[in-house]
Amino acid sequence: MQGDLRILKKIAAYVVESGGKRIRPLFMYYLGRACRIDSRELIELGALLEIVHAASLLHDDVIDGADERRSRPTGAKLFGNKQVVLGGDHLLSSGLKYLNGMQNSSYMTIFTDAIQALSAAELLQMQQHFNLKTSRKLHDRVVDGKTAALFRAAGALVSVMRGEKDFYHTDIADLGLTLGRFFQERDDHLDYFDAARLKKKGLQDFLNGIVTYPLLLLLSSANRTESGEIRAEWEFARLQGKIRNQERILNLMKKYDVERRSADELRAMQKQILAGIGQLPEPKARQIISTEFEKILAVRSP
Amino acid sequence: MQGDLRILKKIAAYVVESGGKRIRPLFMYYLGRACRIDSRELIELGALLEIVHAASLLHDDVIDGADERRSRPTGAKLFGNKQVVLGGDHLLSSGLKYLNGMQNSSYMTIFTDAIQALSAAELLQMQQHFNLKTSRKLHDRVVDGKTAALFRAAGALVSVMRGEKDFYHTDIADLGLTLGRFFQERDDHLDYFDAARLKKKGLQDFLNGIVTYPLLLLLSSANRTESGEIRAEWEFARLQGKIRNQERILNLMKKYDVERRSADELRAMQKQILAGIGQLPEPKARQIISTEFEKILAVRSP
Repeated sequence: MQGDLRILKKIAAYVVESGGKRIRPLFMYYLGRACRIDSRELIELGALLEIVHAASLLHDDVIDGADERRSRPTGAKLFGNKQVVLGGDHLLSSGLKYLNGMQNSSYMTIFTDAIQALSAAELLQMQQHFNLKTSRKLHDRVVDGKTAALFRAAGALVSVMRGEKDFYHTDIADLGLTLGRFFQERDDHLDYFDAARLKKKGLQDFLNGIVTYPLLLLLSSANRTESGEIRAEWEFARLQGKIRNQERILNLMKKYDVERRSADELRAMQKQILAGIGQLPEPKARQIISTEFEKILAVRSP
Repeated sequence: MQGDLRILKKIAAYVVESGGKRIRPLFMYYLGRACRIDSRELIELGALLEIVHAASLLHDDVIDGADERRSRPTGAKLFGNKQVVLGGDHLLSSGLKYLNGMQNSSYMTIFTDAIQALSAAELLQMQQHFNLKTSRKLHDRVVDGKTAALFRAAGALVSVMRGEKDFYHTDIADLGLTLGRFFQERDDHLDYFDAARLKKKGLQDFLNGIVTYPLLLLLSSANRTESGEIRAEWEFARLQGKIRNQERILNLMKKYDVERRSADELRAMQKQILAGIGQLPEPKARQIISTEFEKILAVRSP
């Protein structure tokens, strides 16, 4: 980044200090090591994945008008919409410039695909805002684009490093895709059932009009009267910007056993992921991935 | 672009119908032809320059809260801030994806450099907002980044096509740079002295706190009392969002002959540009550039 600009220094510090688990570069690094790759590029590409993610969060902060992300003031609030949009642009273009310097057009393909998928998925999510008729298929497209794409990219990048020409159609690209889906859907699950673990208030997705898997499960089970109630609660959230009857929504979730059904789905994905990790050649790095994965991404038994 | 999203279709239509002179692709095309290049890439790369420009305008609309751009409602007003930021992101990433498919890492270098320069310059411009102590040097850096960078890119791209390794240090990259500077500074000139030609109200740069060359000239001549007046008028514009005494500012410009001095500077650049065009090998395309250039970019005699 062009570091002599005061605002860019501030935005860079904000991004670095904003914490987060850095799960994308960690996954990329250990996935590579588990494939017996030991190259500086593993770290560079992982850092670039995090940069793309951070730039997207900066734009996302502008976008949804959220006041907080992980209990910290958002970039948009600290620096203003204007500077945050441009700061995101600058961060992303600096990342792409660095990537271009690595002189590998497959890397560039993977990154431009992922960045394109990210913005399309965010737009699709907006298009479906407060739409109770959102299908599972559309929901999955949003999850794949907004989160899984960058994890799949990590797998595809490692595939390129292993010399695979068809880098998207490999077991490790699939592993990345499934891990990314899991990561998002676990977040969506916790938003209803254990928001404290995310260090935020619960039902934020409901409040923001985002259709997640628990809500899809509930809607598929609720009777007509209950669907009408959910619709009314959502209409209230949309118009008033707050949730009127959190208790009622959670009680309906309880009635239809949504937490368990959602957790079952997550555990099925977890199993698939652990099996995928089990196939990786190098035992030590493989062990680190599965231990960290189980630690960071555990799902509470309902 | 992922065309099945309704909003992306709308944004694409908005961008296509928004008019504009398409000066970047036109310049790129005729510059290439004047260098005896005849390839589909000339059109593709020119279109990509326009896409980068359009994506930046979409983000710019969010940014400066401007209600109109060339008398049309802005994208941000039509589609909302959220969708316009994401639409810009998607447009840009789709352009980069296409560019990557062209398999030329020098092209990618030129584009990522220009995109990075664009956002840095916009941020620098914001940092200098309503700063009467802005130096000529900082002013020039803003102009170079926000406008000249894409014209220089056109020249550098043609240089790559001609097989030049050091593609930034060529006569045609310099020609692009000068033309880009001229294009911006002429706009800034007209904003004070002939805004009707831009189909917009005058003194928008003064209102928006942007330090342009005519204002720099005025400040370098004004006595202490007059500088204080200008400062007060600017303070009013900053706080109230409107201009209090346009007449007074224009009278001060007249007193110090700013229109003529600014026009003289523009004409000196014009001369340099026409000399540069005169050096291009192919006479027919060379003629088209200089005719169009004189037509589009004429400066009224004060």
